Amino acid sequence: MPFWSWGKNKWNPDGKHCYVTGGSVGLGLALATILASRGAHVSIVARGKQRLADAIEVIESHRQRPDQIFRSFSFDLCSAEGAEAALDAVVADHEGLTPDAIFLCAGVATPRFFVESTAKDLIDGMNLGYWTEAWTSWAVTRRMVQQGRQGKIVFIASTLCYMTFVGWSSYSPARHAVRGLADTLRSELQLYNIDVHLFSPNTMLTPGYDEEQKTKPKITLKIEEGDTPLTAEQAAIGLIKGIEANHAHISADFITELFRASTRGSAPGHNFVYDWALDMMAMIGAPIWRSSVDTLIRAHRAEHAEYLQTNGVLSTHGDPGPTVK
Amino acid sequence: MPFWSWGKNKWNPDGKHCYVTGGSVGLGLALATILASRGAHVSIVARGKQRLADAIEVIESHRQRPDQIFRSFSFDLCSAEGAEAALDAVVADHEGLTPDAIFLCAGVATPRFFVESTAKDLIDGMNLGYWTEAWTSWAVTRRMVQQGRQGKIVFIASTLCYMTFVGWSSYSPARHAVRGLADTLRSELQLYNIDVHLFSPNTMLTPGYDEEQKTKPKITLKIEEGDTPLTAEQAAIGLIKGIEANHAHISADFITELFRASTRGSAPGHNFVYDWALDMMAMIGAPIWRSSVDTLIRAHRAEHAEYLQTNGVLSTHGDPGPTVK
Repeated sequence: MPFWSWGKNKWNPDGKHCYVTGGSVGLGLALATILASRGAHVSIVARGKQRLADAIEVIESHRQRPDQIFRSFSFDLCSAEGAEAALDAVVADHEGLTPDAIFLCAGVATPRFFVESTAKDLIDGMNLGYWTEAWTSWAVTRRMVQQGRQGKIVFIASTLCYMTFVGWSSYSPARHAVRGLADTLRSELQLYNIDVHLFSPNTMLTPGYDEEQKTKPKITLKIEEGDTPLTAEQAAIGLIKGIEANHAHISADFITELFRASTRGSAPGHNFVYDWALDMMAMIGAPIWRSSVDTLIRAHRAEHAEYLQTNGVLSTHGDPGPTVK
Repeated sequence: MPFWSWGKNKWNPDGKHCYVTGGSVGLGLALATILASRGAHVSIVARGKQRLADAIEVIESHRQRPDQIFRSFSFDLCSAEGAEAALDAVVADHEGLTPDAIFLCAGVATPRFFVESTAKDLIDGMNLGYWTEAWTSWAVTRRMVQQGRQGKIVFIASTLCYMTFVGWSSYSPARHAVRGLADTLRSELQLYNIDVHLFSPNTMLTPGYDEEQKTKPKITLKIEEGDTPLTAEQAAIGLIKGIEANHAHISADFITELFRASTRGSAPGHNFVYDWALDMMAMIGAPIWRSSVDTLIRAHRAEHAEYLQTNGVLSTHGDPGPTVK
């Protein structure tokens, strides 16, 4: 957004229908709560029914007006059919009209070494990290265009859509794919006046984070030990600020901001001078960071070999395929 | 590679076993031919048997020594099982040992508008643009580690792994995913001394290119009309030069080189000064390019609405899902 339009036409959720996938926990719930407290109608979709019920109670406690509509629905969003069915349910209380804003928060990471990942691990990674977002965006775009409605589609990726390292082979490809889709649609959906944003949070203190710590390789934990995680609320506030500023790519922490500014691709940046300064910092800093991480990884070889041995990773785990004769 | 090691330990395919997926046409065949002419044993895998037979004839005509082993195998590499079965066949004539270098050239693009893409189009895009490479890299990495063998895995993406625009919603996500996987494995496979490269060709004059022109939206054709395609041979030569220079990310044309240098993520760059100069050019040039393309796209709205109308895209095509009541 150029400086002369600061403060003009700031996006305002008041009275809008916001659809939040993965809205029952973590970032999705934090976002749904903020949107409710700012006067939006909120629909959330997730799988677990108890979590959805708990989430709706939290959202209700932020109600501003009696006419706000809060709904929750249990669907699996990993398939085109699931995404369509969820959308049918979500629009039912809104005269069949597509939501004004869609926040694609569903997503799960399961970090592991590549050689201990089964075929299912890799497929799950793509389903939970990419397809949940792709199918809902696909279903909703088509209907928005059919109905001639404008709207906003917000993809949620991760710092790992800009960069990646050891341990993330099932997750980073999915997050990179989300970035590829978001950037394509930012370009393409200009044909229909549909806005597309990409939000990339760094580590967040959510139930999903607790889960991913369980399978995370030691070397990955070590590389990440300097991270200062955000709360889901902090991330959600950063996301909404980015939308208000009409940024194509949004982040809520300085590390991701460095990678965003220095990993532009063809997406619009923020402020030229600001982005240039960050880019120069990253140009010096990123190779230093990478070198130090590469050194850590290479120093980890012996311990890793022992890990593979002790856990019988190469002989028994998962789906090793036929052994070599 | 730092300047003091120029010319040292340059990768040499002579006597090595090179496995080329998608090796029967286009870049894969051009690469297989060059590798054969430089003394490598070459195994190619693709689906079409006639094309494989034709390709082996071409490769044979570049034989340098009688003991070079050239083999072709017909497999579908879109599944973990297919990739494992292909690898079994490929290693059979090499004492079961994993190849010294794997070139992942299989890949097909089918550009289309997002709203006219069926669920199958999007799934095929990910299968043909990502999983063909992911499964083979997964199968081969595991065996390399089991056998304690070093090697080289070369992923092939596209300029569209760095940037993207209208028309590429089924392809760019897959190519971004390949970049995410390649960058993760460049980091992770240091644990086993396995080298990972990513090659990103721009438009190439191949049978695949002729296919993609058929479904490519008019606006996408217009945006690409200034492109100067490479031949598959030119691209293959660029790829091999990049491997000899030990570059993590390799491109064979100036436009991709601009996006590579300005879209670094956490992958190693080339030469600091050279990359910095390109980055500064891209910092000025990329927003200008993007603005001009965005202007083109917005000016295309009326014609596009007519296209959707005339072709009944939103009412009849593909798998529109339930209509809104």
